[in-house]
Order: sequence, then structure tokens, then C-alpha cells
Amino acid sequence: MLTRQHAQELDLNDPLAPLRAQFALPAGVIYLDGNSLGVQPAAAPQRMQQVLQQEWGQGLIASWNDAGWFALPRTLGNQLAPLIGAGDDEVVVTDTISVNLFKLLSAALSIQAQRAPGRKVIVSERANFPTDLYIAEGLIRQLDRGYTLRLIDDPAELPAALADDVAVVMLTHVNYRSGAMFDMAAETARIHAAGALALWDLAHSAGAVPVDLSAADADFAVGCTYKYLNGGPGSPAFLWVAPRWQQDFQQPLSGWWGHRTPFTMSPGYVPDDGVGRYLCGTQSILALSMVGVSLDIYAQTDMAALRRKSLALTDLFIALVEAQCGDLGVTLATPRDHAQRGSQVSFEFEHGYAVVQALIARGVIGDYREPRIMRFGFTPLYTRFVDVWDAAAQLADVLRTRDWDQPRFHARGAVT
Amino acid sequence: MLTRQHAQELDLNDPLAPLRAQFALPAGVIYLDGNSLGVQPAAAPQRMQQVLQQEWGQGLIASWNDAGWFALPRTLGNQLAPLIGAGDDEVVVTDTISVNLFKLLSAALSIQAQRAPGRKVIVSERANFPTDLYIAEGLIRQLDRGYTLRLIDDPAELPAALADDVAVVMLTHVNYRSGAMFDMAAETARIHAAGALALWDLAHSAGAVPVDLSAADADFAVGCTYKYLNGGPGSPAFLWVAPRWQQDFQQPLSGWWGHRTPFTMSPGYVPDDGVGRYLCGTQSILALSMVGVSLDIYAQTDMAALRRKSLALTDLFIALVEAQCGDLGVTLATPRDHAQRGSQVSFEFEHGYAVVQALIARGVIGDYREPRIMRFGFTPLYTRFVDVWDAAAQLADVLRTRDWDQPRFHARGAVT
Repeated sequence: MLTRQHAQELDLNDPLAPLRAQFALPAGVIYLDGNSLGVQPAAAPQRMQQVLQQEWGQGLIASWNDAGWFALPRTLGNQLAPLIGAGDDEVVVTDTISVNLFKLLSAALSIQAQRAPGRKVIVSERANFPTDLYIAEGLIRQLDRGYTLRLIDDPAELPAALADDVAVVMLTHVNYRSGAMFDMAAETARIHAAGALALWDLAHSAGAVPVDLSAADADFAVGCTYKYLNGGPGSPAFLWVAPRWQQDFQQPLSGWWGHRTPFTMSPGYVPDDGVGRYLCGTQSILALSMVGVSLDIYAQTDMAALRRKSLALTDLFIALVEAQCGDLGVTLATPRDHAQRGSQVSFEFEHGYAVVQALIARGVIGDYREPRIMRFGFTPLYTRFVDVWDAAAQLADVLRTRDWDQPRFHARGAVT
Repeated sequence: MLTRQHAQELDLNDPLAPLRAQFALPAGVIYLDGNSLGVQPAAAPQRMQQVLQQEWGQGLIASWNDAGWFALPRTLGNQLAPLIGAGDDEVVVTDTISVNLFKLLSAALSIQAQRAPGRKVIVSERANFPTDLYIAEGLIRQLDRGYTLRLIDDPAELPAALADDVAVVMLTHVNYRSGAMFDMAAETARIHAAGALALWDLAHSAGAVPVDLSAADADFAVGCTYKYLNGGPGSPAFLWVAPRWQQDFQQPLSGWWGHRTPFTMSPGYVPDDGVGRYLCGTQSILALSMVGVSLDIYAQTDMAALRRKSLALTDLFIALVEAQCGDLGVTLATPRDHAQRGSQVSFEFEHGYAVVQALIARGVIGDYREPRIMRFGFTPLYTRFVDVWDAAAQLADVLRTRDWDQPRFHARGAVT
């Protein structure tokens, strides 16, 4: 059953297989790192030439109107919204996750300060992506009003952490190291029952797993476009605010793009109605334009179909690695339960860093996260079942032959 | 003396004339709006293809190290530093002016809260670019510690505004509407003598006029790369922090790119030494890469040569317009004194909006700012003296023939 031929048959029967041709995959590489940086859509260079030569080169300032530049954070937000269960005018594509978290945490704390001034705690996970915690820390230090950050070490500790002093719970839906996924609706309900607000980081969810912020009744969300959404290195982030909160707070990064009438150039700030007030400064049009190219590919399928393939890919990888490497000291760090799994598979291994380097030398690109985690991301838009089979075979060979045990695979680069 | 032939001779004798070939100027257009959006460097499309196809397309995540992506905000900062009188490791290219102002105003207020807690006022100009004021307003509202914004209506009011309650003075070096320029060294000395800190916005200065932040003994600065620096629409902003203040404050937007060791992924924030702590989240590499293309052109000349030509261009434009239109109701809004003039010329005219539209219809691109200001930016890298002559002639003709007085030139677009 776990033969390469079986994997090839799965590819032949894969309804999403044709989408792979819309990506500029490098030759000779099995790319399992779309959870870090997505592959380039094949249409990106041509679209970029159009933006450079026609919109910027020829159109110049007229393109702020004529090419829809000024509206891009909102039009892209509307295009992205269906992937995360959001409606029109609820999402903007702008700034970075870090900056957007600052805006949304400010909003959440302010709203709670009105409703329940005694709630002074932000709850999160110690295993959350660090920048989320750093931003909470920076905001808390700046406000200097007795707010604190309460970090849980395991999702199971969440109920106990939800005391009546909690203002907001900031969770990353799919963990960047383990690939473990929260039940967004259940956790949001639990958070609300405890009187707190729920802020979700969708960095490893948007475009990777079905997300329904509206059905989950979430309050706020941020996310990334350069991972599963293939927007290019460092492409702008997005944020979502539940309609019920949009008018309740003037976020502190109140730059001119969030002004109701930015071009009247009036000295006093008047926030735009709705989610537009979460915009701040002028955004890179080149960067935003690439996000649109990738969202056009998503428009050709849906998250249910992508999820089916994603689970089949990760199931196959887990089965293959455990069958071939189960005796070699690797331990699955990603939940087996589909309901708790994102679109990546992580294995723990003592020499994980060196193993990942040895795999990269063989053209199998995953990545490593401290401590001991080997991460493999599966992107149903362009990953084939045969890639999964070949990657698992290479991993088994690297481990069995101890190929990783060479000095060159232990040297640390600045960025891993 | 003011003949077109004279302008042609000035071009023939212009040592900077060859640089024009390095810009992709649209045909049939006289572009006098580089103070809003710079013209595309001719090398930009090829460099972008390299970034897209080799760095992102082929290199994928390896490019964070191999192509120097992660270091770009700092390497570009060092490349930009000579243009503004800054040293190595004092500038980073990142985020937007609005976001960067929030960081720097936070730093300035915090430093003053340590030194002189009674200083609770931010001084600025009512005529400052609005987003600067909006950000100050947002920060003041968020801090909720009795800070206020004191706006002066004329630069001459600055001495009187500098009471002993002033924490920081935030001024834009060259005014976006009038093109009037402050004497940075003199005003900084005055601000320091009053016990306040000086924060300069260089949006209309960097690459436009000589700036020497170090010699002026300034404290903080922000600036733009998409105007005179030709980085492309919405390209990332920059910020500068005087070395003496770099270690004194942990700015609140403490994202992972400002962490001392971002890839250890530790849950606690430790700021980087120096200006690196002013970084926040992951930046668009495509956007940053274009900034480098333009800075490579600046490396072929120097700000003294650019300034000589800039003043010659603006002198000529003022002389031509006043000679030809002096009786038609236009009034110079830009200082005649070279020491007080940036690299733009503004004229007030009651029907300025319609005049600018009529000029654009003739291929002369300036822009309009409320109320009544017709702005013309002069970029010595690519603007010719003959362009100045032709633009003035067109303006005179539009005014003399009342060509502007057509309904189509009065219709307002969303962005002007």
C-alpha cells in the first residue's frame, strides 16, 4: 500500500493536480517549506512587469486611482475574506503581523477596559510564535497600567488560566513548531464564557486549513500572506475585526490611510468607518500586487478540497516516516487526530538541525525550529503525493546511513 | 535670458544630465511630481526579475541568508545614511513613516519622562503632513498620561511655543505644501536650548536637499523612500536614531526583527543593541530591493551637486512663471531664499485644482494640495532645464487662455 506506485496513483486521481502548473517550482527540489515561504506563482513575474512598467513606469501618480492602488488593502482583504470565513469590509491586507497585533491587542484591552476594568491579563501560550508574545510585552510595558501576560505551557491549561482577570486570549490557531491546531469555535466559546475576548493568529492557517472566523464568533484575527498564501518574501499581513467591534476603538497607530477622508489633509484625525481605521501608513504597492496573484489561484478551488488533500498528504508522510524510521529515534510532534492537525508535520529528533541540512543537500527542503523540531509543510496547491513518498525515503536514508553526521551539516547559519 | 534656447544650453552644460538615462521616464510627459512618487529607475525591472526568479523563485527560504534578505533593512540603512549625514548602524529602512513616528515619539517621550517628567507637550506645525499629527494624537490618546499636542501656525511661533513643558518638537524639514525648509541645525539648537528633543521628518528632504543630522545634532528622524528616493509606490520608510539614544529605550512595537537573537525563538523579548531594536515585523523583500536600485544611482553623484542643480531648476521655474503669469493671479508659496527652499515650487491659485488637471491633460504632471496649492517637484536626477521651460510655458498658456475653466478639469478623483 505505501509504495511509490501508490503515491503516483494518488497524484493521477488528484483533482487539484493541475494547479501545480501555476507555480514556478525550482527544478530538482521537493519543497516542503511553504509554511515558511510559499512558492512563487508562475504568473507573478508577468504581473510584476505590468505593475512596474505600466502602473508605476507609465501611470506614475495617476495609478493611485487608475490602477486601484489606494484601495488595494481593502480589495485584497475582500478577496482573502472567504478563505477565513470573513465578510466584505472586514479584512485589510496591510503592515506586518507584529504591527497588526499591536493594533488589535490595543483594541481588545481598550474594549475590555470599558466593559470590565478589572480584567488586566493577556493569556497566551509560551509556545506561541515569539513575535506575538514580544508585541504583547511591548504593549503592556508601554501602557504601564498593570496589565500582565499569562503564558500557559500546554493547551490543556487554558481552562484554568481563564480566571475573571483575563481581558483577552491571544492564540495561534496552528502552532508553528508542532503543527497542532486549536478547535477555534470551541476555544472561542470557552474564552467568551469566561468573559474574555478571542484574538486568533492565522499565520499557519490562512490558505492552509478551513477557517471560519464568523462561525467561530471570534473577535479579532491577524495572519500572514507569505506562507501558504504565496505572496512573496515578507509580503503584507492581514487583520480582521469582527463587525461588532469595528466602531468601538480608535487604534493608536492612527495614520492617514485609516482617516475617513485622507486627502482633505486636515490636521485632526477622524477614523474611517469600519475596518479601514486599522490602516496606518502608505503600503508597498509592489508587495500588495503579488498577494493578488496568489489569491487568484485560490479562487479556482476551495478550502474543503485543499483540506482533503492536505490531510491525505500529511497522513501519508506520517505513515511513511513511521514505517521507515520508527526505530531510528524520530518522534511525531504533530497530532494524529485530523481535527487537531494543521498542514504541516513535525518530527522531533536530537540531531534535527543536521538532518534538515542533509535533506536540503539532497534537494528536500524542510526546515528546523529550536529545539529538535524538523518541520515539513504540505501545500496541496503544488505538493504531490510522490513528493511525499520521495521526501520520506530521503529522510529514512539520511537517518539510516547517519548521513547527517558530517561537520558541514552542523554549521549554523544566521537564519535557520 | 529666459529663452528656451538658454534652457537647452543649461542642459548641455549640466554635469548631471547623463543620469537622466537611468530613469524610465514615460514618453511625452514632463514629470514634476517626484516629490509625490519618484520615477522608476531603468534598472528596476531587471533587478526585480532577478529577485523574483533567482532569489524567491529558485532560492526560496535559503535567500533569507544567501541573498541577504534578512539584513536588508540594515544594509539599505547604511547605504542611505550618507544622504542624511548619518553613520553606519544608525539607520534602518523599514515599515512606514507613520509606524516609525510612533516608535520614535514613544522613545522621545519615554526618555524625557526619565529626564524631565514635567515635560508633557509635543510641539508641531498645524501645516505638518497630517499623518505626523495623527500619529502623535494616537500615541497621546493611548498613553493617557496628560500629554498634549501644541500646534503652531507659523514657524515664527516656534520660540514662543518652546516653554518648559515641551518634551519633543516634531517638524517636517521641508513642508509638503509650500516647499519651505527649516534650518535644521539652528532649530535643533533652539529646541535643545529649551530642553526638548528634536524629531525631524525628512519625507521631502532625503535625496532632495543636503541633510546632515549628525552636524545638526538632531535626536530622531524618519523619512520616505518613494518620493525623491524613487523606491516605488509605497516603498518602505526609514528611521534614524542618534547613537546617544539608541540604548535608552525599548520601543513598544517590539517585534521579532528587533530582537537580539530572533532565531532562538525565545518567549522573552531582548532588544537588539543599537538601531536594530527599532525593527518590528518581517519586511517585504520585493519592496526593499527596489530601494537599493535607486540608492545605487545616488552613489554616482552627491547631494551638493544635486542641490546646485535643484536650486537652478527652481530658480528658473519661479522666474519663468512670474515673468509670464505674474499678472494672472498666481502667487509664489515657496520661499525665494535658497536657504529656506526645498526642491519643489508651489504656487497658490484660486482654481489650482483645475489648472493642475489642465496641465496633466497636456502632459505636464504636477499635483494639487488643498487649499489652492499647485505643487511642482524638481528632481535633479532626471529633470531637465528645458522641461522647466516647457512646463512654465504650458502653465502660462493654461492660465492665459483659461483652459482650466472646463467642467472636466473640475471633477474630483478619490486621490488628487
